[in-house]
Amino acid sequence: MIIAKTIEEARKHVWEWKAREYSIGLCPTMGYLHEGHLSLMQASKRDNDITVASVFVNPMQFGPTEDLAKYPRDFERDCRMLEAEGVDMVFAPEPSEMYLDDFCTFVDMTLVSEGLCGRSRPVMFRGVCTVLTKLINIIYPNRMYMGKKDCQQLAVVRRMVRDLNFNVEVVGCATVREEDGLAKSSRNTYLSEAERLASRVLSRTLRAAQEKIAAGQTDAEELIAFMRSELAKEPMADIDYVEIVDGLTMQPIPAVREGDVVAMAVRIGTTRLIDNFIAGDPLIDIAG
Amino acid sequence: MIIAKTIEEARKHVWEWKAREYSIGLCPTMGYLHEGHLSLMQASKRDNDITVASVFVNPMQFGPTEDLAKYPRDFERDCRMLEAEGVDMVFAPEPSEMYLDDFCTFVDMTLVSEGLCGRSRPVMFRGVCTVLTKLINIIYPNRMYMGKKDCQQLAVVRRMVRDLNFNVEVVGCATVREEDGLAKSSRNTYLSEAERLASRVLSRTLRAAQEKIAAGQTDAEELIAFMRSELAKEPMADIDYVEIVDGLTMQPIPAVREGDVVAMAVRIGTTRLIDNFIAGDPLIDIAG
Repeated sequence: MIIAKTIEEARKHVWEWKAREYSIGLCPTMGYLHEGHLSLMQASKRDNDITVASVFVNPMQFGPTEDLAKYPRDFERDCRMLEAEGVDMVFAPEPSEMYLDDFCTFVDMTLVSEGLCGRSRPVMFRGVCTVLTKLINIIYPNRMYMGKKDCQQLAVVRRMVRDLNFNVEVVGCATVREEDGLAKSSRNTYLSEAERLASRVLSRTLRAAQEKIAAGQTDAEELIAFMRSELAKEPMADIDYVEIVDGLTMQPIPAVREGDVVAMAVRIGTTRLIDNFIAGDPLIDIAG
Repeated sequence: MIIAKTIEEARKHVWEWKAREYSIGLCPTMGYLHEGHLSLMQASKRDNDITVASVFVNPMQFGPTEDLAKYPRDFERDCRMLEAEGVDMVFAPEPSEMYLDDFCTFVDMTLVSEGLCGRSRPVMFRGVCTVLTKLINIIYPNRMYMGKKDCQQLAVVRRMVRDLNFNVEVVGCATVREEDGLAKSSRNTYLSEAERLASRVLSRTLRAAQEKIAAGQTDAEELIAFMRSELAKEPMADIDYVEIVDGLTMQPIPAVREGDVVAMAVRIGTTRLIDNFIAGDPLIDIAG
């Protein structure tokens, strides 16, 4: 597996692959990999000749009070996992390689980026759009693989690719969960044992909402009130948002249709967790 | 000459050229072409296998009180001129082809875009960066040709290409002038006969500043005061700015060095004209 730390090194390999007309799949990550990330690599390997993973904790998408410094990192472990998946190249630049001292350009968005996580994390999607523009321009992927767990990020990136005419297919991959239903996330490592147990309230509440919808409930306001009351049963849970939005625009809708997204962000202690389902998806398994 | 009105049509030809490993030069324009534009086409023809011109009056780079509606247009004349230059394709989309109704993404910049024209035209460079990102992603040019007359635009685009890792070389082309020194601009068509005569004050003042610098003057403050007093001799001239800035960052500098830009924007009647020279450039010819 190639480990490219510089843009020049990464591009050298990309041009060789392009010259041979190999298709390239890109899986952008912030490292500290879990099975959710690995499912992106597996999907990319199925679809493309070459799979590139990026490992970059992007400073631009963290707000001043957020967890940039303490975000978990273990590059050697990440490399072992990526190599085991058969990834061809990992692109892992230093922040100074991606952002020169006088860097001053950014890609931003209104509408799709403004609600949900954009409300409490106003700089995040600007950081995501800017770094992904750079990664697309460095790796020239035919396809880019992203998790559906970050549903708004996926919608933002799809919109950016459409609006700016990037020539890449954005592939959304199903959320991978722990046995008890908790969505896999690098931030789960922040949870104490008691918080880890409390965090089950997210997927349990989503599953209960799925059952309501399956039973014919479509009123968004009533579903949100129901989910809020379910979350309130867990004393450690502090709701950031519970919303039901259009899958493309991330705008609130009054009545749930297939393809709409039921999404939540909840703080358990100091850790902010997000989870969601798309109306029409199979029921979340919370058996564990 | 191919006339592509849609992104799909343009891309179809671009892929064919790329498959043959042809190099592509892109000359982005807002149409109503003059010799300045044609010099871009000529430079592109010298350097590349294929030359593409875009003709698109980009609504995003006009402020609400600016001249979008009355900006001069003559697409048939433009096509005749481009065909005569041997341009291979003109890409001339409708605004609705470039900006879907729910378009909401933009590329923007701080620092380089903020002074000079960015002060009186705050949305312009956002519009320029966004539309050029789209054009680069549609045409995949190896080189992009832009006039040095729009010195800040050139600096902004160079910075954008650097910061976002676009794989294109930005080539700056010398300002083309009328016989009496006035920089060619589509907006010169707005000038009445009296205004046209008054507009000579811009190039005459720049030429006088060039002579001062050639004689050893380097103090930016003194040079600016001198140019302001020269411009003030023309009663129809209303100064927007006169500045001396670093050629890469567009930030004011105290003492002129080679490569710095001496730039001005002046209203003659209701028409806003810009002009500049780069310290070290040959003297502007104001003989006519």
